[in-house]
Amino acid sequence: MLHFNTTDFKGWERFYRANFFNSIGGFKPLNLIGTTNKQGVHNVAPFFSVLHLGANPALLGVLFRPHTVPRHTLENILKNGYFTVNAVDKSIYQKAHQAAAKYETEVSEFEAVGLRPKFSTNCKAPFVAESKVAVGCRLEEDHHIAANDTILIVGRIMEAFVDQTALGSDGFIEHDAVDTVTVNGLDAYYQPQKIDRLSYPRPNQPLHSLKDE
Amino acid sequence: MLHFNTTDFKGWERFYRANFFNSIGGFKPLNLIGTTNKQGVHNVAPFFSVLHLGANPALLGVLFRPHTVPRHTLENILKNGYFTVNAVDKSIYQKAHQAAAKYETEVSEFEAVGLRPKFSTNCKAPFVAESKVAVGCRLEEDHHIAANDTILIVGRIMEAFVDQTALGSDGFIEHDAVDTVTVNGLDAYYQPQKIDRLSYPRPNQPLHSLKDE
Repeated sequence: MLHFNTTDFKGWERFYRANFFNSIGGFKPLNLIGTTNKQGVHNVAPFFSVLHLGANPALLGVLFRPHTVPRHTLENILKNGYFTVNAVDKSIYQKAHQAAAKYETEVSEFEAVGLRPKFSTNCKAPFVAESKVAVGCRLEEDHHIAANDTILIVGRIMEAFVDQTALGSDGFIEHDAVDTVTVNGLDAYYQPQKIDRLSYPRPNQPLHSLKDE
Repeated sequence: MLHFNTTDFKGWERFYRANFFNSIGGFKPLNLIGTTNKQGVHNVAPFFSVLHLGANPALLGVLFRPHTVPRHTLENILKNGYFTVNAVDKSIYQKAHQAAAKYETEVSEFEAVGLRPKFSTNCKAPFVAESKVAVGCRLEEDHHIAANDTILIVGRIMEAFVDQTALGSDGFIEHDAVDTVTVNGLDAYYQPQKIDRLSYPRPNQPLHSLKDE
C-alpha cells in the first residue's frame, strides 16, 4: 500500500492532485442538470455531485464548486428557483460530457450537443427528453461551505419521469435496466453490472441474496 | 414514460417511497466510515453519501440522515474530530452491508462482521485494513439542513492509503482495477466496467477517446 500525507498533497502538480481527489471517493452518479436563464436560454450541464437527502419530504442536494465548473447552472437555480436532474445512460454519455464545455451564456447546450429539452407545467426548467429517469426540483435551501467556498443546493423533488422498464415493483429504480452510467473523476465512464441485492442486515443473522426470493 | 407528482409521492407506502427516492439519483460510491467512541470502541459503518468537495485543500463531505441510520458514526465524529473513509470492493461488500446492522454501542462492528482495524499515527480513527483505497479525515465543518434535519459533515483529508495497482500515472484512482463496487438504494451492489475516458470538452471540438492516446 502506498501512503501519502498533507506534505505529499502540497507537492503534487495541480492536475495530478485534482485527478487524485476527484476519483478517490469512488464511483459517482452522473446526472444532467437542466436550468433556464433570465434570457430564456435553456442550459444543461453534467454533475456528479447529486446527493440523496431524504425520501419524505423527497429532497436532494447538489454541490457546486464555483472555481472549477461553469457557474451558469448555479446562477440560474438561484435566480428562477427550479432545476431538473436527469440520469445519463450509455446512449447519451458523450453528449453529456460535451455539455461540460464552457459555452457562452447565449448558447443553449441542448442545441450545441444535440439533446432535446422537454417541458412540464410544474417545473420552470427543461428536462432532457432523452433521459429515462428524471426529477424536477424546486430550490429549498442553499448552504455555503466556508472551507473552500462551495455551495450546497437543496432541492425538493416535485415530480418524476421514469421509463417503465426501470421501475421495480417495490419502488426501486433499476438503473442498470436502462443502461445508466456511473462516472469517476472528470472523464471516466463505467457501466455497472449487478452483483446482488442483499437482505436487511440484523445483528447475528446471516445475510441472504434477494435474488433467491 | 411514467410521470409522478407530489400527490403520488404522498400516497405511496413508506418503503416504496424510500426505495424510489433512495435509488432515483443513480449509482453511488460505497465507503465504510471508521470512527472511535469515547469508550475506545471502534465503529465501522457503510455510507453512500460521501461527496467530493474539492482538491486544494482536499475536502470531502458526508451526509448523515439521523432518522434512518444509526447515529454512532456521526456522534463519534463530532466528539473526537476524526474519521476514515474506506472504499468497499467485491471481496468485502457483504461484510460492509452487515456492518449497517444496528449493533449495541459497546459492540465493535469490526469484530462483529470480521473486518480488521488499522491505525495510523496521524488519525484518531481506525482504517479498514482490507480496503484498497482509504483516506483519513479531520472534522472541518458541520452544516444543518433544515428541510429534513440532516447534517453535512465536511472533512479535510489528512492522509491516504492507495493500493499501488489502483494509482494511475496521472493521479487518477482506477477503482475498477481493485474491484471497488457501486451501490444503489440500500441493498443493491454493482461492479462497474469501464466504457471509456473522454478528452477535455471544448465548444465546437469533437471529443476523442483517451484509450487511443
